[in-house]
Amino acid sequence: MSDTTHTPVDPVALTQQLVRCPSVTPEEGGALVLLERLLTDAGFACTRIDRGGVSNLFARWGSRNARTLGFNGHTDVVPVGDADAWTVDPFGAEIRDGYLYGRGATDMKSGVAAWVAAAIDFVADAPADASLVITITGDEEGDATDGTTAILDWMAEAGETMDDCIVGEPTSPNDMGEMMKIGRRGSMTAYFTARGVQGHSAYPHRALNPVPALARLIADLAAHELDNGTDHFDASTLAVTTFDTGNPATNVIPAECRATVNIRFNDAHSSSDLIRWLNTEAARVGKATGVDIEMTATVSGESFVTPPGPLSDLVATAVEAETGRRPEASTSGGTSDARFVKVICPVVEFGLVGKTMHQVDERVKVDQIGQLKTIYSRLIRDYFA
Amino acid sequence: MSDTTHTPVDPVALTQQLVRCPSVTPEEGGALVLLERLLTDAGFACTRIDRGGVSNLFARWGSRNARTLGFNGHTDVVPVGDADAWTVDPFGAEIRDGYLYGRGATDMKSGVAAWVAAAIDFVADAPADASLVITITGDEEGDATDGTTAILDWMAEAGETMDDCIVGEPTSPNDMGEMMKIGRRGSMTAYFTARGVQGHSAYPHRALNPVPALARLIADLAAHELDNGTDHFDASTLAVTTFDTGNPATNVIPAECRATVNIRFNDAHSSSDLIRWLNTEAARVGKATGVDIEMTATVSGESFVTPPGPLSDLVATAVEAETGRRPEASTSGGTSDARFVKVICPVVEFGLVGKTMHQVDERVKVDQIGQLKTIYSRLIRDYFA
Ligand SMILES: [Zn+2]
Ligand SMILES: [Zn+2]
Repeated sequence: MSDTTHTPVDPVALTQQLVRCPSVTPEEGGALVLLERLLTDAGFACTRIDRGGVSNLFARWGSRNARTLGFNGHTDVVPVGDADAWTVDPFGAEIRDGYLYGRGATDMKSGVAAWVAAAIDFVADAPADASLVITITGDEEGDATDGTTAILDWMAEAGETMDDCIVGEPTSPNDMGEMMKIGRRGSMTAYFTARGVQGHSAYPHRALNPVPALARLIADLAAHELDNGTDHFDASTLAVTTFDTGNPATNVIPAECRATVNIRFNDAHSSSDLIRWLNTEAARVGKATGVDIEMTATVSGESFVTPPGPLSDLVATAVEAETGRRPEASTSGGTSDARFVKVICPVVEFGLVGKTMHQVDERVKVDQIGQLKTIYSRLIRDYFA
Repeated sequence: MSDTTHTPVDPVALTQQLVRCPSVTPEEGGALVLLERLLTDAGFACTRIDRGGVSNLFARWGSRNARTLGFNGHTDVVPVGDADAWTVDPFGAEIRDGYLYGRGATDMKSGVAAWVAAAIDFVADAPADASLVITITGDEEGDATDGTTAILDWMAEAGETMDDCIVGEPTSPNDMGEMMKIGRRGSMTAYFTARGVQGHSAYPHRALNPVPALARLIADLAAHELDNGTDHFDASTLAVTTFDTGNPATNVIPAECRATVNIRFNDAHSSSDLIRWLNTEAARVGKATGVDIEMTATVSGESFVTPPGPLSDLVATAVEAETGRRPEASTSGGTSDARFVKVICPVVEFGLVGKTMHQVDERVKVDQIGQLKTIYSRLIRDYFA
């Protein structure tokens, strides 16, 4: 099918090469240059999509008119953190006792390497009606404004599409193959400021104390059951993370206090519904107490889900065939770039064990990188079978 | 009645002399030395009672066996504060536009001067069965552990007593003569610490959030009506003054949070009853939430009252005769050394207008110092009439 000679890629060696690229967001660090050369050599048409100081890569093999299986991953990594606490060079990709160490070893240079190796194998002997798209972002760990979003914007302009997409993030908490993600909860943070009138604690009637008002609101919000879970989601959760007066004096009623609430919500809610609810609650307590309670909110993402169906079945079957374990279809955890991809096609996330991601001595079992490549290879074959 | 020649004392000049003594707690600043000389010259037997680095003065005129009217006051003053904000020398005792300026001008060197002037007038021509005690502390504005308490301890040992006592603190909010104090509310501060288990806000079920628990407790405490007031007291008040997590991250559930509550309580409560109630409430919320809520409390003083009767009538009659205004018998405001004196005899507080006490440009109307001396003179005469 291609003009190029097929050179198989070792996913462990590729992971090591990628870990050695110091690609802390927004640095490209050589990782995308390396992947672009490798994929080009294997017959992929590559486009670098750089926006806002961030580098991203789009690669296609096969016809736009063919059924297209996509992949989304990232090569950027979070900072090293406490460098002295590492027992290895965080960018050394050292292999020790069966583990490959380094920042990004788990999240998610190994996942990218496994998919790229599987894809290069596949295109060496692919059916005529198959097509692959690989999207690699350099802004997943940052604020994600110029990463996957930039690739999708470019795809829309260029008339590029995918029919389904696999995201290669680590998805299993402990054991290889135990979990895939078919969606994620939404996340939003609400910041409350309650304003009253300062005064001396001996004369509370001359003051208007904002603290009991905000305490009442916070206690009521925390006691409220948002839902009992939905078909594909656990119950939504609300966590109060801060409450502060910053008042140095214990005999002064403060004029102001602040609290922060973080909500992880399922598909029974949208962030705008929740903002409406929070504002109503703040107004209710404000009216009862005379304290002015103001709220601002930031929304990290809405909830999304690809309901169990052909794509999740495909992943589950491939995982079970290679590991003997049928992965749970979960919607747990924080948010991921799957939220962007979901807008254009069904998406399922499956990757390695995420246990050490973002930690000191981040590491991955060397065996499992090979196993992941085998799973991906089977999944791609099955998709086009 | 005495061997000494009577030299009348000008209470305005004496106030100026006292203001010029820089007697910021615990400094004596020459104020007690001056009073001791003056009172000794007038025939008083003086004893300096110094304890814990603080100076105090006890003076008696007349027999221990005679009916004794006492006086309690202080010559120590709070610090100057922002010296640049003063329009005069805080220890200059400058008179400008009818006001005497300086730290202590109101609180309460003028009150001490007025009483001393009235007492010296009185003893020049006193009936045989009259006796006066004057107690002046140098530790009223400090922590009051070695001030009036030291004098009372010494009196108990020395077999000294008073039958009634006037405290010369400023008592009127705005106009001369409008208010006397027959008691004060108690004051206590409770410090709550709620301890849970830290965690990520995305997984609240793995954490135990102390914030909603403490918020619930604080809201409940603030909503509780302690009482509706008693015969001589306004309703007790509870003011939440602090609530803090000190959490820098909005996606982390904190392990701990703290709140402070200040209670000003009337004679329907004792601090030990209130501490019991607070502990019960903390335990109730702790049991309902699983959060450990610990409380510590500091008690500044219990409530006390000298119910309206002969002493308050005496004061009210003297004030009304000199000002045309019958003073309200109040128990409002913070605490005072009357709480110590109350233990040994009935006590009523009456003095000048307190408006500028502890402030920059503290000042007193010159006329009112003379008026206060006249009131005190009448009060002493009437007491022994
Ligand atoms: Zn990742
Ligand atoms: Zn005072």
